Amino acid sequence: MGRMLTQAEVRRLRSLRDKKDREALELFAVEGEKAVRELVAARFPFVEVYATPAWTGASTHPVGEAEMARISHFPTPSCVFAVGGLHRVPLPAGGLDHGLTLALDGVQDPGNVGTILRIADWFGIDRVLLGADCADLFSSKVIHASMGSFARVPVHAADLAAALGAARVPILGCDLAGADVHTLAPTPDAVIVIGSEGRGLSPAVAARVTRRLTIPNYGGAESLNAAVAAAVVCDNLKRGLTSNGGVR
Amino acid sequence: MGRMLTQAEVRRLRSLRDKKDREALELFAVEGEKAVRELVAARFPFVEVYATPAWTGASTHPVGEAEMARISHFPTPSCVFAVGGLHRVPLPAGGLDHGLTLALDGVQDPGNVGTILRIADWFGIDRVLLGADCADLFSSKVIHASMGSFARVPVHAADLAAALGAARVPILGCDLAGADVHTLAPTPDAVIVIGSEGRGLSPAVAARVTRRLTIPNYGGAESLNAAVAAAVVCDNLKRGLTSNGGVR
Repeated sequence: MGRMLTQAEVRRLRSLRDKKDREALELFAVEGEKAVRELVAARFPFVEVYATPAWTGASTHPVGEAEMARISHFPTPSCVFAVGGLHRVPLPAGGLDHGLTLALDGVQDPGNVGTILRIADWFGIDRVLLGADCADLFSSKVIHASMGSFARVPVHAADLAAALGAARVPILGCDLAGADVHTLAPTPDAVIVIGSEGRGLSPAVAARVTRRLTIPNYGGAESLNAAVAAAVVCDNLKRGLTSNGGVR
Repeated sequence: MGRMLTQAEVRRLRSLRDKKDREALELFAVEGEKAVRELVAARFPFVEVYATPAWTGASTHPVGEAEMARISHFPTPSCVFAVGGLHRVPLPAGGLDHGLTLALDGVQDPGNVGTILRIADWFGIDRVLLGADCADLFSSKVIHASMGSFARVPVHAADLAAALGAARVPILGCDLAGADVHTLAPTPDAVIVIGSEGRGLSPAVAARVTRRLTIPNYGGAESLNAAVAAAVVCDNLKRGLTSNGGVR
């Protein structure tokens, strides 16, 4: 067992629940054996790992269960609490002009943002662009839902309308009145914009879309979940390209 | 304002949070203006609708806000609490032999089950088969995530292995080592089995699968969310068939 944590350390670690404190400290936290293990496996460079004896991985701060309960953000603490540096990577100039980008416009549900990172990873999308109105990339729910893809997919924060305005590739927007997504040819360079479930694309972003796409509807639902729509579009865009196979 | 609710009525309505009480009373509850409105629009026959003056639809029991707070299952009550009859519909004999069925094997996350109902509705899947190990169809999270599709998609509870054993159509199972889903021809009659995210298909169900399918992987993620996988398979199965278009 290491030395006891000071009151100030406990306060600092607990404060990482809140976005404004994460921003101020430029740190974020991930808890839970499965989530931390996935990120370690993806070689995410954690700066601190607080862990009880039940954690079998490396740790920088061995703590007891009572101390873990003091720092944890959850009513039922796990055996590990890892801290990473919060770095937001701006989009480099010309950054959308090669490869495939998923751009998220007002996707506020953190589960959807995390699931979309996992989808981007599965389909080999080159980057995700997060508009200002999206769930915070460094929130616990986003990281958990990404199932490790948080550490593998390049994510850039951006003013979406400005970034799309500078792009020199097709900008595909999903809505309910576009071209059938089944008619898409495999496209090596493009941006796919996914809008908010409630409000669709924002007007400034919709104005940048060069091709509207629709997933054909064969039944009664009025819409699809944002992450589900993203996956169907990615599957259609990649169709015919060489895959890794299904087995990892 | 109607008469005050009795203590026994309040207790009965609050008890619908718990599956065993729902089963005993053969009733379930839906709260929230959006969710109730979606189900009313889909002509779901609620038996009781408790509503405060803020609810603009029909109600059988006008209540005040304080009474709503007593019956609500949530810390922040909405303006409406609707009660429906809990009916589980067994699969009729030969029930899988025509049309498309999504069969869920151990899909325990209620958000995934609800999202899969919405996907089944969008893609015009004829029915959903819920195995014993799935989230409860009548739980609040399933109904909310289905966005009204709960009222439109026929759902049957079943012993999956037995039901699949009696089916005379192809049984397609998603795993990581099957045939490329992009090679599927449009299939009018089939069962698509979706397994648990953590454990995949159970052995008894896997033994009934006649064709294994895989969504090609182009990147680094190890798997896709169960609902996302269901949507990609449905989109491939329906491809080439006449759709309703994207506009509703």
